[in-house]
Amino acid sequence: MNMPIRMGLSGMSKVRAHISTSLDGYVAGPSQTMEEPLGVNGEHLHDWLVVLRAWREQAGMQGGEENVSNAVVADEYANVGAEIMGRGKFGPPDRGPWGDDAWQGWWGDDPPFHKPVFVLTHHEREPLRLTDTIFTFVTDGIESALEQARAAAGDKDVFIGGGADAINQYLDADLLDELELHVVPMLLGGGSRLFDRVRPEVSLELLRVVEAPGVTHLKYRVLK
Amino acid sequence: MNMPIRMGLSGMSKVRAHISTSLDGYVAGPSQTMEEPLGVNGEHLHDWLVVLRAWREQAGMQGGEENVSNAVVADEYANVGAEIMGRGKFGPPDRGPWGDDAWQGWWGDDPPFHKPVFVLTHHEREPLRLTDTIFTFVTDGIESALEQARAAAGDKDVFIGGGADAINQYLDADLLDELELHVVPMLLGGGSRLFDRVRPEVSLELLRVVEAPGVTHLKYRVLK
Repeated sequence: MNMPIRMGLSGMSKVRAHISTSLDGYVAGPSQTMEEPLGVNGEHLHDWLVVLRAWREQAGMQGGEENVSNAVVADEYANVGAEIMGRGKFGPPDRGPWGDDAWQGWWGDDPPFHKPVFVLTHHEREPLRLTDTIFTFVTDGIESALEQARAAAGDKDVFIGGGADAINQYLDADLLDELELHVVPMLLGGGSRLFDRVRPEVSLELLRVVEAPGVTHLKYRVLK
Repeated sequence: MNMPIRMGLSGMSKVRAHISTSLDGYVAGPSQTMEEPLGVNGEHLHDWLVVLRAWREQAGMQGGEENVSNAVVADEYANVGAEIMGRGKFGPPDRGPWGDDAWQGWWGDDPPFHKPVFVLTHHEREPLRLTDTIFTFVTDGIESALEQARAAAGDKDVFIGGGADAINQYLDADLLDELELHVVPMLLGGGSRLFDRVRPEVSLELLRVVEAPGVTHLKYRVLK
């Protein structure tokens, strides 16, 4: 039934996600708090990333390690026109509704996105502009957020920036085109699980593997 | 405290496990029954394997596909002197205690092991010999089973043959040396989970990746 729409969309930009995961399938550890937004040991999921030249560059820093992960990361950053993120990526869970509009995200006055960001939430709030990042709060569901993000992205791709719950929802709704896992050989033992409550009918196909220091990059295409 | 023992063991054979896992971390699907011992859709975890020449060969059959997975599988079969398996791999969970000694495993009169097999169980039972496979039932824990398997294996390696629970116990007890995951790009949505209840302190290091039709082989060394 979706065929005509899918065919019509075939020339359009992609909806992509990429995320670091532990070997036991968690993208954030247990006991996520204001001080440890990625939970106990969760920040170590990104040890391979934050040392890279490509990551430091987009964060406005110089230097950094040169290894095969740089090309993987540069590829992911390229051609992204808009991001969609879950409520939990924007703010801590104990922050409650947006009533006072005081919370401006984790990232300070100049967030590193530099593009339109759509936040999935149940609480209405006016858009928030911080330098060239505009956060738009979407309360009418993931399809609406994707529609707005596509419009904002133009010819470019839409990036589903996590957390697990946001990616799982788009995967489950058959709205994701590509998923790259950065598999880190550590265990977290609890936390936010990728693929949780995703329909087992969802099927993927490996596009390529990159073996890198401290991480293995597995890029999948979601089969339609 | 384990240092002297570990040093003493350094020249010994390895304890290895390898198992097919879905992308969502299950090595068997939900609702495991007598008819579907690997649960709903669980048998598809082995679609990549059963077509291979290397697998058919060890099962006494001719022909089969030639691809890079053959070398991976041949490598795993090589140099194994004994296997340890969980109670659930030997028989279905609703089979109850071994009182009547009637259950002889899933594999018929000539099981494909052709070596000593140690079954972890809580129910005592006399050893069972079927051609050149001897099943020994071990009721006094995983360390005892490993000791017996090492003795039976001589210079060769000990293979922890699954299911998830057996591998998880050896991993958690720091008794596993190598773990190879055959990652199949499918979701099972439930079932037996690898890494469940394994201490998050357990740390691994990637040894190598092989990208093959329908599966990605990730071989890890467990760090001590």
